[in-house]
Amino acid sequence: MSSINSENASTLESAMQLMIQTFHKYSGNEGDKYTLSRAELKEMLTQELGSYLGNAQDQDAVDKVMGDLDSNNDGEVDFTEFIILVGALTVACNDFFLEYHKDGTKKNTKKE
Amino acid sequence: MSSINSENASTLESAMQLMIQTFHKYSGNEGDKYTLSRAELKEMLTQELGSYLGNAQDQDAVDKVMGDLDSNNDGEVDFTEFIILVGALTVACNDFFLEYHKDGTKKNTKKE
Repeated sequence: MSSINSENASTLESAMQLMIQTFHKYSGNEGDKYTLSRAELKEMLTQELGSYLGNAQDQDAVDKVMGDLDSNNDGEVDFTEFIILVGALTVACNDFFLEYHKDGTKKNTKKE
Repeated sequence: MSSINSENASTLESAMQLMIQTFHKYSGNEGDKYTLSRAELKEMLTQELGSYLGNAQDQDAVDKVMGDLDSNNDGEVDFTEFIILVGALTVACNDFFLEYHKDGTKKNTKKE
């Protein structure tokens, strides 16, 4: 993906580039270069989200994520399905950090 | 968001952190700290996605994005609505780069 120029990218553009780069880092390993096979999905989950998902080593967990994501039932996760996973995880993380932040600053409500 | 530790984060975790940080950078400026008002959305679009959206200076364009995103019609964009925008833009960017990449490497089909 040498056509992506990360110089002068905004924070959000950097995030978008990192998501695109991550997908293609794994999707090119076998079969269709532009989708994640079950094995590629497992490697991506383990390498990239090990600390979030914990048990990606577990084949049942990988099968469950694949089943949830693979909306067209072709046994492959395409880029849109990958973005839906990342989006859902990001929303969950944001909720978690907001709860944490609110709990930690209950006495400090300057802006509310 | 000092509770997010970016050390040892994977590429994908970094992307997720950058999206969360970007949203809160703008959402805290006025009104509800956890949603983007119309003015905050405009600032975010201009600062972060100027090179993608081009005409975010245009109030009509901001109104259109707000109308498309604000699914619960409360005049504010919440984090989930923001992630849907970023996800849709990332899918569009990926499609664009794949087309570009395919056109540029038509003769070089080692893996297909």
